[in-house]
Amino acid sequence: MDGLLRRVGLEMIWQEAKIGRVLVCRMDFESDLLSSLEEFAREQKVDAAFFIALGAVKKAAFAYYEQAAKKYVEEVVEEPMELLSCIGNIATLDGKVVVHAHAVFSDRLGRLKGGHLLKGTTVFAGEVLIVELSGVELARAYDSVTGLNLYTPTPKP
Amino acid sequence: MDGLLRRVGLEMIWQEAKIGRVLVCRMDFESDLLSSLEEFAREQKVDAAFFIALGAVKKAAFAYYEQAAKKYVEEVVEEPMELLSCIGNIATLDGKVVVHAHAVFSDRLGRLKGGHLLKGTTVFAGEVLIVELSGVELARAYDSVTGLNLYTPTPKP
Amino acid sequence: MDGLLRRVGLEMIWQEAKIGRVLVCRMDFESDLLSSLEEFAREQKVDAAFFIALGAVKKAAFAYYEQAAKKYVEEVVEEPMELLSCIGNIATLDGKVVVHAHAVFSDRLGRLKGGHLLKGTTVFAGEVLIVELSGVELARAYDSVTGLNLYTPTPKP
Repeated sequence: MDGLLRRVGLEMIWQEAKIGRVLVCRMDFESDLLSSLEEFAREQKVDAAFFIALGAVKKAAFAYYEQAAKKYVEEVVEEPMELLSCIGNIATLDGKVVVHAHAVFSDRLGRLKGGHLLKGTTVFAGEVLIVELSGVELARAYDSVTGLNLYTPTPKP
Repeated sequence: MDGLLRRVGLEMIWQEAKIGRVLVCRMDFESDLLSSLEEFAREQKVDAAFFIALGAVKKAAFAYYEQAAKKYVEEVVEEPMELLSCIGNIATLDGKVVVHAHAVFSDRLGRLKGGHLLKGTTVFAGEVLIVELSGVELARAYDSVTGLNLYTPTPKP
Repeated sequence: MDGLLRRVGLEMIWQEAKIGRVLVCRMDFESDLLSSLEEFAREQKVDAAFFIALGAVKKAAFAYYEQAAKKYVEEVVEEPMELLSCIGNIATLDGKVVVHAHAVFSDRLGRLKGGHLLKGTTVFAGEVLIVELSGVELARAYDSVTGLNLYTPTPKP
């Protein structure tokens, strides 16, 4: 549908990994949620990992991906919110470490919001567990079907 | 309440496990989120695991469990959505590998939805980390108090 | 902003840990989600861990943190809901094991709610994976900037 021609069925690309370093983090007040994690990963040379996080933010920036138009629609919420859930991973794009995460927030009136996490989300408090994966490379590359930079898990010696 | 008579307090059924295989997956465009994971787990003989996932879907099928009536109320949302969170596990039911997962989605207008994941949720993009558990068996069986097929973690030699 | 003077930029406090015990749990019908996990952690002497959970609750109690006023606003929802996501950790406060978790719920009408999990959330069914962290201490202490008891990850011999 929507002119998308490829249909590969139930095949899945996967790779077995080992657990590398396990990193417990407390994020800094007023740091940028996405940028700090990315900077930290680059500094610590973590190039393949998954993480979970919870906390609170002073403002949030996130996006919804318009699949047909292949573009992100961005939203910024300029108010304090709880960070109810943040699930993400660390991979590479053109050899550079990049963080991809989706977040769920709750505002003062109990309304839930969220999306693809963008830079511009300011940490009030943040608790993160990063599980590094060794033996696997997660290189992202442009995928013309989705318009996204998808990773392909491959073995890493 | 609601005629539920058993009250076992703060007892919890638990089992210590070891981490088995760690599997990093990229799901296929237009595959079925639940079925693909289940098929993959069966093929790879993963019968005890927890996983986390993020991504986007072309449509979503999920359910709310009516606890008093002991039945699922299903909902299908026929539009592209972000997959903000998916937490689930892999266990067995009558010796067959089954996937149980709950998902949170966000639609074009920023409304969040979600529930007990059903077959019929079509992947646009999906990134999954599966952590296999060894030394434990997660056999599901019908529980008359809740009407659900609950697992009981038991040692596995 | 809001009289908050400290700004420490992109520094992050972190510590490398090892994975300790991996505990798969099935929570008891009508147990208290937060209290049961806390009691279990105390009994099993788990004082540093992260966990993920899914399930359903008979009622939920959670809070939104008013960052400017530095106080929690509590909400209780007296109806059955799906537990779509629960991400949390186990740390210590004044030497006592404490559980911190954020949860996302979905009610009968498909409305999502959630927040900082409080005692008073009654389990209908709950499946939890606890990953203990060894080699790290997660002692919480009052942080005057946020008004929260934040953990500082430090090495543990």
